[in-house]
Amino acid sequence: MLQLESKSAQDEMSKIQKSAVMVIGGAEDKIHGRLILQTFFQRSGAQDAIIAIIPCASREPATIGDRYRTIFQDMGAKDIEIFDIRDRQESDDERWHEFLARCTGVFMTGGDQLRLSGMMAATTVMDKVRMRAQMGEIALAGTSAGAAVMGEFMIAGGGSGESPNRSLVDLADGLDIIPEILVDQHFHNRNRMARLMSAIAAYPEKLGIGIDEDTCAMFESDDVFQVIGKGTVTVVDAAEMTHTTYPDAELTDPLSIHNLRVHILKHGDRYDFGSRRMLSSL
Amino acid sequence: MLQLESKSAQDEMSKIQKSAVMVIGGAEDKIHGRLILQTFFQRSGAQDAIIAIIPCASREPATIGDRYRTIFQDMGAKDIEIFDIRDRQESDDERWHEFLARCTGVFMTGGDQLRLSGMMAATTVMDKVRMRAQMGEIALAGTSAGAAVMGEFMIAGGGSGESPNRSLVDLADGLDIIPEILVDQHFHNRNRMARLMSAIAAYPEKLGIGIDEDTCAMFESDDVFQVIGKGTVTVVDAAEMTHTTYPDAELTDPLSIHNLRVHILKHGDRYDFGSRRMLSSL
Repeated sequence: MLQLESKSAQDEMSKIQKSAVMVIGGAEDKIHGRLILQTFFQRSGAQDAIIAIIPCASREPATIGDRYRTIFQDMGAKDIEIFDIRDRQESDDERWHEFLARCTGVFMTGGDQLRLSGMMAATTVMDKVRMRAQMGEIALAGTSAGAAVMGEFMIAGGGSGESPNRSLVDLADGLDIIPEILVDQHFHNRNRMARLMSAIAAYPEKLGIGIDEDTCAMFESDDVFQVIGKGTVTVVDAAEMTHTTYPDAELTDPLSIHNLRVHILKHGDRYDFGSRRMLSSL
Repeated sequence: MLQLESKSAQDEMSKIQKSAVMVIGGAEDKIHGRLILQTFFQRSGAQDAIIAIIPCASREPATIGDRYRTIFQDMGAKDIEIFDIRDRQESDDERWHEFLARCTGVFMTGGDQLRLSGMMAATTVMDKVRMRAQMGEIALAGTSAGAAVMGEFMIAGGGSGESPNRSLVDLADGLDIIPEILVDQHFHNRNRMARLMSAIAAYPEKLGIGIDEDTCAMFESDDVFQVIGKGTVTVVDAAEMTHTTYPDAELTDPLSIHNLRVHILKHGDRYDFGSRRMLSSL
C-alpha cells in the first residue's frame, strides 16, 4: 500500500515534470524523425493526448490545421480539435472551453504573429491556455509565429543585413506566456542576430532567445529550458549590460551596446533562465 | 628655449600617437565626406604623406590602385606609389624598399584575402610594412580583404544563414600585423555573426572583431582601438568561455559555445583590447 502510494506520488510528480512549453524556431521536421513534434505528442500524454491546434496565425488556418491534425492522428492522439477561430467573439463559444478543460496539449502554428496576437490576445480562450500552461497542466507548443508570441513583448518583424539599429526591429505586445523572454525564430537561418540584439537593447530586462529552424527551446518547471533539435538556440543576456544608446539614438543610427553575454546552445544543452546560467548538458 | 624643447617633445609625442593601424570593413566612402580615408591621409602626415598602395588582393590591381591614387592625390599627398607586385620575387626589387624606407602610410585594398596573403606573406616588402607599422612609424590601413589579413589567422571565406558550425568558416594564416585579433568585414551587412562566432570557437584566445562597411577600427598605441564611421564594430570575446564543442564536433554539426561576451561599438566608442574592456567614448 505504501509502495502504491509512493508510485502514485511519483506518477503525479512525473506528470508535472512532463508538462512543458515548447518554443519552436519554425520549419520543424514533419516527415521523418519528427523529433520535436513527437516530443510534444509525448508531453501531451501520448496515446491519451487530447490536442487543441490553434492555427490563427495563418491565412490558411484550415489547411495548416489539417496538416498538424494528420500528424498527431498518425502518432495516435486520442482526440484533436482545430480551433479555427476567425473572429475574437468566437473565442467565447462554449465548445472551445469544454475542449480546453479536458485537453492535455495545445499547439500554435506558424503564420503571422501580429495576426495571431490580434486574434487571440486577452480572449477567454488564450487566457485559459496561458493559465493551464503556466500551471503545468498542459503541454503548450508554438512554432515560428506561434513561438514569437511567447513573451510579454514580441518581435513582429524586422530586417537583416544592417548594423544593429532601432529601425531594424518592430516590437509589439506578445501573449505573455513566458514573460521573461523575448523570442526570435528562423534565427541563424534568416540571419537575425542583429535584430534580436536591437530588440534586447530596447528591453534589456528580457532574455533574448533566438531559435533556429527545426530546433526547440523546451521550458520546464524550475526555470530551466533544454534544447531539442537540429540547430542552435542563441541566448542574448543583457543583465551585465553597461551601456546602450537605445532610447536616445535616431531610428537608423547604429546602436552602441556594451557587455552582452551570448551563449550558443545545441541539442541537449540546458540553461537556467532564473539564475541566467548554463547547466551541464544532458 | 625651454618652451621650444617642450613643444618639440610634444610634436614627437603627438607624432607617435598619430600613427595607427586602421582596419576597415570595406565599402568605405570614397566620394563624399571620405571620413575614414581622410583620417588615414591625416595619420599619414597630410600634405607630407608619402603613401604606398598595395593592390595585390585585387584581380584588377592597376585599376583599383589608380582609384586610390586619385583619391589621395586629390587630398594633397606628397608622393604616392602603387605596389603592383604580381610575383612574390618582385618583392625584393630595390625600388619598393627605397620607397618603403621613406613612406609614411601604407594602404591595402580589397579583393581576395587569400590572393593577398599568397602574394605577400613572408615577403621582404610585407616584413618591412609590418615592422614599421608595429613600431608606430607609419600609418597602415587595410579595407575588406586588406582588413581580413591583419591577424595571425584570418577568415578566408565562409557562409551565412546557418547555425554556427565548423564548415561555416574557412580559416587560414593572416599577415600577423595585430596577432591578437581575428577580423571579419562587411560584417552585419553580410550577416557574418555566425561565421565569426564559429571562427572564435576555433581560436578562443583571439579577439573576434567584426567590422561593418564604411566603418573602421583604428588601433593606436596602448592597445586601444576606437571606432570611426557609419556602422558598428562588433567585439566577440571568448576570454570567459566555459565550454565549446569546436574541436570535436562534426564539420556541419551545430556548435555549442557558452559564455561569449559581445559588444556592439559605434563611432567614437573606444575599446582596450589589452585588458579587454570598454573605455568611455570620445
